[in-house]
Amino acid sequence: MLKISGIAASAGIAIARAFILEHPDYSVEKRSVEDTQAEVSKLDAALAQSQSELEAIKERTLQELGEKKAEIFASHLLILNDPELIDPVKAMITNEKVNAEFALNETANQFISMFENMKSAYLQERAADMRDVTKRILNHLLGLKFMSPAEISEETIVLAEDLTPSDTAQLNRQYVKGFATNIGGRTSHSAIMARSLEIPAVVGTKEVLSQAKSGDLIIVDGLDGNVFINPSDDIVAEYRKKQEAYDLQIAEWRKLRDEETVSKDGVHVELAANIGTPNDVAGVLDNGGEGVGLYRTEFLYMGRDKLPSEDVQYNAYKTVLEKMEGKPVVVRTLDIGGDKELSYLQLPKEMNPFLGFRAVRLCLDRQDIFRTQLRALLRASVHGNLRIMFPMIATLGEFREAKALLLEEKEKLAAEGTPVSEDIQLGIMVEIPSTAVLADQFAKEVDFFSIGTNDLIQYTMAADRMNERVSYLYQPYNPAILRLVKMVIDAAHREGRWVGMCGEMAGDQTAIPLLLGLGLDEFSMSATSILPARSLISKLSRTDMESLAAKALEMQTAEQVVELVQSIEA
Amino acid sequence: MLKISGIAASAGIAIARAFILEHPDYSVEKRSVEDTQAEVSKLDAALAQSQSELEAIKERTLQELGEKKAEIFASHLLILNDPELIDPVKAMITNEKVNAEFALNETANQFISMFENMKSAYLQERAADMRDVTKRILNHLLGLKFMSPAEISEETIVLAEDLTPSDTAQLNRQYVKGFATNIGGRTSHSAIMARSLEIPAVVGTKEVLSQAKSGDLIIVDGLDGNVFINPSDDIVAEYRKKQEAYDLQIAEWRKLRDEETVSKDGVHVELAANIGTPNDVAGVLDNGGEGVGLYRTEFLYMGRDKLPSEDVQYNAYKTVLEKMEGKPVVVRTLDIGGDKELSYLQLPKEMNPFLGFRAVRLCLDRQDIFRTQLRALLRASVHGNLRIMFPMIATLGEFREAKALLLEEKEKLAAEGTPVSEDIQLGIMVEIPSTAVLADQFAKEVDFFSIGTNDLIQYTMAADRMNERVSYLYQPYNPAILRLVKMVIDAAHREGRWVGMCGEMAGDQTAIPLLLGLGLDEFSMSATSILPARSLISKLSRTDMESLAAKALEMQTAEQVVELVQSIEA
Repeated sequence: MLKISGIAASAGIAIARAFILEHPDYSVEKRSVEDTQAEVSKLDAALAQSQSELEAIKERTLQELGEKKAEIFASHLLILNDPELIDPVKAMITNEKVNAEFALNETANQFISMFENMKSAYLQERAADMRDVTKRILNHLLGLKFMSPAEISEETIVLAEDLTPSDTAQLNRQYVKGFATNIGGRTSHSAIMARSLEIPAVVGTKEVLSQAKSGDLIIVDGLDGNVFINPSDDIVAEYRKKQEAYDLQIAEWRKLRDEETVSKDGVHVELAANIGTPNDVAGVLDNGGEGVGLYRTEFLYMGRDKLPSEDVQYNAYKTVLEKMEGKPVVVRTLDIGGDKELSYLQLPKEMNPFLGFRAVRLCLDRQDIFRTQLRALLRASVHGNLRIMFPMIATLGEFREAKALLLEEKEKLAAEGTPVSEDIQLGIMVEIPSTAVLADQFAKEVDFFSIGTNDLIQYTMAADRMNERVSYLYQPYNPAILRLVKMVIDAAHREGRWVGMCGEMAGDQTAIPLLLGLGLDEFSMSATSILPARSLISKLSRTDMESLAAKALEMQTAEQVVELVQSIEA
Repeated sequence: MLKISGIAASAGIAIARAFILEHPDYSVEKRSVEDTQAEVSKLDAALAQSQSELEAIKERTLQELGEKKAEIFASHLLILNDPELIDPVKAMITNEKVNAEFALNETANQFISMFENMKSAYLQERAADMRDVTKRILNHLLGLKFMSPAEISEETIVLAEDLTPSDTAQLNRQYVKGFATNIGGRTSHSAIMARSLEIPAVVGTKEVLSQAKSGDLIIVDGLDGNVFINPSDDIVAEYRKKQEAYDLQIAEWRKLRDEETVSKDGVHVELAANIGTPNDVAGVLDNGGEGVGLYRTEFLYMGRDKLPSEDVQYNAYKTVLEKMEGKPVVVRTLDIGGDKELSYLQLPKEMNPFLGFRAVRLCLDRQDIFRTQLRALLRASVHGNLRIMFPMIATLGEFREAKALLLEEKEKLAAEGTPVSEDIQLGIMVEIPSTAVLADQFAKEVDFFSIGTNDLIQYTMAADRMNERVSYLYQPYNPAILRLVKMVIDAAHREGRWVGMCGEMAGDQTAIPLLLGLGLDEFSMSATSILPARSLISKLSRTDMESLAAKALEMQTAEQVVELVQSIEA
């Protein structure tokens, strides 16, 4: 028996036999060919097979996981049909009389190394995509017998170096009970997918692949981040119990689905969900969400070749509002730019995109884009309980400008005779330190705040949250962050406004006691975190948490704050 | 007479005849050559001439303007001698039998467009350098009669599209009384050079070059940002008076050189200077600096091919301390990484370098580099009044770690019998919002704070200060910034610590009344701003400024704060 530690990436316990997912050897040899026409036809056949495979995967992903996750396969299809890649491959076959796989590999590698050498995370992702697509074509060209995860048909635990986007999209939840990988962290692609699929997973084990072989019995403990290879019967029995306890816990949580969220001492707070597309609403309701605290509208703008029309947007907003049946829906206006690019917008490259021309900064400049969205929102407002919020507001001037545009469009619609709700709350994201520090002034003019901790933390600590070398500074529990949250909540309450939070922190079990104590009114999180959060809050007294939070605000380091919170659990 | 408005880039009034600095037409034609050997020799001759020119300019710049400014010509020499550029040019001449200027132009343009296409301000600067060097070689190859600014020998005002680094380095202060350019802003290279040369300048006029011709009478008003072409006698007379008044003002300021800095109601504050190299100390003393508030040590690490040794550093620190004769010298430890690269360190490319692995973050990881600097500082400490500060501190943990390394090196030196001062104050830069918000906790452990407003503003507003599209958010007078400054000062004073400021804001005439009112103890700025600041402070009552600052803290926008400050001037 061997126990290997890794990073707990997705909660739950899974026990099953190992399926080793290893990608074949894709090394290719250079051969001279006489009949170059035949070689080009061979390439065309492989491209056609890859195309139909990708279309099927894209379709399945769209159905099971939604638009956002399917986007990556749309990118793969674009690469597959890109004449800038394919034409040079064919030219090389014809001119240099070489085999298709060599020509493909050479050409793709040139692109990949060009992308990788550029100082752009976006292009580096494109390199990963191109590598994925090249392998897919090579599978067909080389006639490799790669068993894809889609073909798994008995209960297994998948073990792999890492899971590519294609791999995870092909995992069948019916048979794949869990997985463990050598590399990756809590925010790597495979970990995020595991949580959204609700499959227990441990990542970053470094050695699971070298230690286990196909058919070994495996336990994946996604609660504590451990993997057991060929465990003893005692351990299996122990983990079966742990699995049952976890299942019971899940069942317990499910009972809270239709309950309100109330602390032990009777204080009600609201638990809402973050969504990206109308498809996500089903999960929100299924997990007992009391509203949508953040609807990220940028997915409407992605994966297409031009801006979405007013009607396309109107229909999406209307669908969400109707499905939520009068529960509040907070829609964030377009947060694009910086690292989130839209190919058809041609935004200039920036040296520091996270500190750049994005979100409301871009919308105030490109009023054509912004006004279309505002009109679509205003028209949809009659179909439910709409709240609008602007992202990346740094100054009161920006808020006033954005609000003025909204009021202008509202007047135009009124003049056209289009009905618009008179009860739309208008708020802002608090994700820039200046806005938190000046929250008392903002509170005089907005209806609500939603604290966006992901960005607020990265700006407050001056540490890019995507940069591993400074990830130690991404500290949600740093007393400085808690003080800013406190400033925002106190300022809002003094003016009778409510405060939500829609960053990762709002669903974090260590942060929730502190946030309850600081007086947060609304917690918006991944749908799957709602029931555990409701359960936790029901066991906490808000009065006690106020004392806890007061202590935390006077601590010196994030580590001390974590210890403090852990002391109440003990 | 024509009056053109631009951006006031360097204070003062200049009146003289126009010298039009226009670079010749460098377009080249492709010619076939038979004697390729002769063509290569022609190139070698042009390279040799360019080399001796560049060495002369570099030497002059080093003497007149110091190491930092000379660095760019060291880069030019590297490019001139780079086989990666020169070998392909020669190969092209030989293989394609073409003329040298065509081969040079083609090859250089390839590099330039490659650099320009990359998402890196650093490489874009390299493109500008390569363009500069190529032009210089082409001058010789094409036999162009370009009159360089170095050859000017009568009093003139230089008018140009823009000034390249080579141009400004060649300006002779004896003859060049002022300049005006079509493009550029207050922080463009030419503007910075004008201020350090103390030549009146107006930049960004858009049209001065198309409106004026050689020999026209020109007035450059670097106080209000205006340029007059062929002014009437009345205007000339008016500006002679304005010039005299400014000269009187300068003379008045000079009288304050050996005075203390005292407010109208008798409060003493300290005016110190920011320096980059030991050569800068002369300017500090000449302008009545009461200390060095920021010694940027990174210039010691730049323009060389390996890390500076402990002795090289020791000598630099010792020189500064000795020249300052017991006045305090605040040395900032290495602030490299992010956008400031060192070719020999091979730092990984980052998506958001301003939020990345830089300064103390890098030093805590690369302890070899950090310990060498700390030892050099400790050894130099006996030669004057040394204060050490760490940049980019975001958490108390980082400060404690850095301090522990300093104490370890101190003990080692003691064990070796090397004398070290016992009175070294140890402080931190406050340039990250988390540190400002938690200043009360930091104040228990540091000897002083120095607020770095350039970075503090960019992080607090989440706006890259180098990115023009979000430059409207770089707001020193935003009440949120003033509140953070206030938090830091109050926290420090409660623990009996002093607070300095070493960003641009400390020398800004609009900010000074506010900073005095907020209780700032030390203002560190460009040496040339010290006397105007001393003069301004002598006319202000600190008590009045306290009321002013209290009002500013309750304002809603930066614009309101500026109006408030202007109201006291009126």
